[in-house]
Amino acid sequence: MTSTTTIWDTIAAELNGIEIITDPTQLAKLSLDYYHFSPILEAQLKDKRGNLVVRPATEAEVMQVAKTCVKHKVPLTVRGAGTGNYGQCIPLEGGVILDTTKMNQIRWIKPGLACVEPGVRMAAFDKQAREIGWELRMAPSTYRTATIGGFIGGGSVGMGSITYGQLRDRGNLRALRVVTLEDEPRVIQLRGDEVQKVNHAYGTNGIITELEIPLAPAYPWAEIIVAFDEFMTAAQFGQALSDSDGIVKKMVSIHAWPIPSYFAALQSYLPQGKHCALLMVSETDLEPLQELVREYGGEITYNKTAQEASKGTSILEFTWNHTTLHARSVDPNLTYLQTFYFTLDRVEHMYHHFGDELAIHLEFLRFGGKAIPAGLQLFRFTTEERLNEIIRYHEENGTGIANPHTYILEDGGRKTIDPEQLAFKKLVDPYGLMNPGKMRAWSQMTND
Amino acid sequence: MTSTTTIWDTIAAELNGIEIITDPTQLAKLSLDYYHFSPILEAQLKDKRGNLVVRPATEAEVMQVAKTCVKHKVPLTVRGAGTGNYGQCIPLEGGVILDTTKMNQIRWIKPGLACVEPGVRMAAFDKQAREIGWELRMAPSTYRTATIGGFIGGGSVGMGSITYGQLRDRGNLRALRVVTLEDEPRVIQLRGDEVQKVNHAYGTNGIITELEIPLAPAYPWAEIIVAFDEFMTAAQFGQALSDSDGIVKKMVSIHAWPIPSYFAALQSYLPQGKHCALLMVSETDLEPLQELVREYGGEITYNKTAQEASKGTSILEFTWNHTTLHARSVDPNLTYLQTFYFTLDRVEHMYHHFGDELAIHLEFLRFGGKAIPAGLQLFRFTTEERLNEIIRYHEENGTGIANPHTYILEDGGRKTIDPEQLAFKKLVDPYGLMNPGKMRAWSQMTND
Repeated sequence: MTSTTTIWDTIAAELNGIEIITDPTQLAKLSLDYYHFSPILEAQLKDKRGNLVVRPATEAEVMQVAKTCVKHKVPLTVRGAGTGNYGQCIPLEGGVILDTTKMNQIRWIKPGLACVEPGVRMAAFDKQAREIGWELRMAPSTYRTATIGGFIGGGSVGMGSITYGQLRDRGNLRALRVVTLEDEPRVIQLRGDEVQKVNHAYGTNGIITELEIPLAPAYPWAEIIVAFDEFMTAAQFGQALSDSDGIVKKMVSIHAWPIPSYFAALQSYLPQGKHCALLMVSETDLEPLQELVREYGGEITYNKTAQEASKGTSILEFTWNHTTLHARSVDPNLTYLQTFYFTLDRVEHMYHHFGDELAIHLEFLRFGGKAIPAGLQLFRFTTEERLNEIIRYHEENGTGIANPHTYILEDGGRKTIDPEQLAFKKLVDPYGLMNPGKMRAWSQMTND
Repeated sequence: MTSTTTIWDTIAAELNGIEIITDPTQLAKLSLDYYHFSPILEAQLKDKRGNLVVRPATEAEVMQVAKTCVKHKVPLTVRGAGTGNYGQCIPLEGGVILDTTKMNQIRWIKPGLACVEPGVRMAAFDKQAREIGWELRMAPSTYRTATIGGFIGGGSVGMGSITYGQLRDRGNLRALRVVTLEDEPRVIQLRGDEVQKVNHAYGTNGIITELEIPLAPAYPWAEIIVAFDEFMTAAQFGQALSDSDGIVKKMVSIHAWPIPSYFAALQSYLPQGKHCALLMVSETDLEPLQELVREYGGEITYNKTAQEASKGTSILEFTWNHTTLHARSVDPNLTYLQTFYFTLDRVEHMYHHFGDELAIHLEFLRFGGKAIPAGLQLFRFTTEERLNEIIRYHEENGTGIANPHTYILEDGGRKTIDPEQLAFKKLVDPYGLMNPGKMRAWSQMTND
């Protein structure tokens, strides 16, 4: 080796035959995600870069990458499409970025279940699954580009959660194959509750190479917008629809004015000053939906059949964190919170308490068997102090905050250390090479 | 006419061309239902008989029957298969019994929706619907013989209610055609919320001649029995399964010992002294179900695939009010209550309060979006006073009793007069000929 040869050149050479990316522009792009929705994360993460990106196409190649990283004790960060918002896949300490998007084989699809590689894109998967009448149980608003493995690693809920709950709920992930970062990397298979060791762990404890996932019947999903004069009426309608066991739905998304004003492409369906509901409901259940809309005094302004909806942009892409995306394209100072309100009383309290400072955006989802309002409220960022005050006020009033302004696994949604995930990390990543700095439990243990 | 010619001979003659039954044995059989589960109803109803049974095969024939009954001002009582338990279709004042079982045409079945005549039997319907992957959203334990029209007229919940809620929930019945008992009978079509005018009205306000109903995806339903050492653990397991959004199920039925001892055909799967859960769960979700069973310390003693289950007697026929049927075949002094406990706390309270006097049988169902335990508890009948004391204690402690010991519509489940149903009855049955004595609102109005 000459003196200009770096460890990265060595690693690249050792991984000969596997696609490697070192071009700085590409490297920058493949080091980041949609962390910039948060001004806090923006400042913390914008300069973080991996040293090289590797794109294995098979599990055997993943094993090879794992072995090389362990040999050189360099960090390894796994990414899918990089559509997360918490810097889940941004390497804090550089190193190798393992991009899974070439591992995009669907192993099999049968009624109710499928087996895929992690890099399979969700919309592409559904296109095939729908041929036999099935689809993913849930997916984020980045459905068109997001990968299934990335959603398991970094996601938690999405469209479909109003029926199937959260990804972490028993039954929503069936089995995983993961490659370890031991001296001699191996494949571990996890089934049943064991999958929770790796589910939503930000890729800190094993490289997922295959997933078995449950499917949902693919209804013809009509896309509907309903306008309401009063925000709380819209919110109550959202709860009532979510609780309507006789109406099959996939998404119940409620937006306080002025959020609808941010949806440029939908302006003709969003009357000035009105609050709106963006819905996905089975076409066969439109008639009872219309009765419910009438009961709450709403006005249906947009009603696309599944067939029509499949041609243009889905209203999915105005909901969940796409709402924040549209808002920020109008005003880049806008950012957001993630809140489990649990009850409409708390929604109403916060609606009145914060007034114009916070624009409430609700997504209903099932939480332990009950439909609850969750929020991705928008507000203009001023200072970190004010952000923390807002969070504190929410927490003191009984809501649960899944803080989107931290890249630390435990500080986001769950708040507590997961001993099972930590134990599994000790086993599969004894050198702490996987996405270092993301799992607080590990950092605390190794600093002791 | 000779002096021995009765009005019934005249009516029979006027209905020439339509099947008429006057044989006393048949007349007795077709005048009754499974009212005898209640000793109170047994005493009140056992001698009630219609004067003739008519079996129209078309809506035109129904119109003819209606016109004749109005002309002669004789009572008309509509029945399906007579599998109800509250004397819904037992004629209190004699008259014509309209048996709908010859109106058994399926008009159409498409994904998610179907249109049928009232006399279509539920299991027979599903056999056809499953050919295109669909089935009824809910059905009673008398599924094999019960008719769809009868279930709408006299039923309220059943298997499937753990997902789709109650029949009365918006969306679970889409449209009806009903024939009126006006001087000139006509057909009225009801759609949307309007169907509630006739839904669960015991056939007091119009003769249903066609129904449009929503369907559910037909999963391969595995049938499972789980045994538990402690009753409350079984009950908690039932709630947990019902709240498991990631596990697709059709039935969650929990039985305190000694109820399992009444299930003769299942004895080898029901360990002595143990409490049990009878479940219908999607075959594709058995793995997460097994994890849940493990969490609650249950033991799976019976596990039939959908294929196997389709061959023998379904465990459905040991649940809902079939439980009572089996219990009474062992001890005819046993009778039952119907209770909305709403919470497990109330279940536990009643379990301890009544001890051996009441054997708790729970069926979980969705009620306004939440899974709740409902009960069809068994107890040995002593006196009407003690029965009423038991009911009163339940009501004073916050449970809702749907009293199965009354044939009065309002005194059963809903307790209150439904002004919409009363108004509709005034319109379609101005002479009060339909199933007289069943709707308290009407009786009170006409006695004023």
